[in-house]
Amino acid sequence: MLKAKVYVTIKQSVLDPQGVAVQGALHSVGFREVESLRIGKYMELELDTDNRQEAEERLQQMCEKLLANTVVEDYRYELEG
Amino acid sequence: MLKAKVYVTIKQSVLDPQGVAVQGALHSVGFREVESLRIGKYMELELDTDNRQEAEERLQQMCEKLLANTVVEDYRYELEG
Repeated sequence: MLKAKVYVTIKQSVLDPQGVAVQGALHSVGFREVESLRIGKYMELELDTDNRQEAEERLQQMCEKLLANTVVEDYRYELEG
Repeated sequence: MLKAKVYVTIKQSVLDPQGVAVQGALHSVGFREVESLRIGKYMELELDTDNRQEAEERLQQMCEKLLANTVVEDYRYELEG
C-alpha cells in the first residue's frame, strides 16, 4: 500500500476567477495583505501496490488522462512510504 | 513578501462524494489499484509582509474565518521564505 498526494494547479498564464473571488472576500473582511491567491486541487490517494516505480508511472497516467486538464492545468505528485 | 500554501481537506469522518466519483472514474478507465481517494483544496497566497510570526497568525485567522469550513474540514498551512 502506497500513499500519494497529487496537486493540480491552474497554469500561471490562465485566469483563476475563483481565486480572485476568494482574494476579494479576504480583502473585504480585512485581510488586505493578500496580494494574490490561486486555488488548485489537492488529492490524497491510497494505491494497492508496493512497487514505487510502477506507482509513479501509473500516477502520471492518471494525471494525464483524468485528474488534470493539461491544457490549462499543471500537476505534480508525491509518493509517501 | 511571503508565500504561503494552504491545504483544506475534508475530515476523515465526513463523506467525500467528489472523491468517490473520481475514484469510480479512475476504476472505469483501468486504474483499479486506487483504494481510496479524497479531494481537498490547495491555495497559494502571496502576503505583503515580511513578519513570519504575524503572517502565521493572520493565515490561521483566514482559515478559521473564510478559507475552511471547520465543521467538516481540516486545514494546514506552510510559509515559504
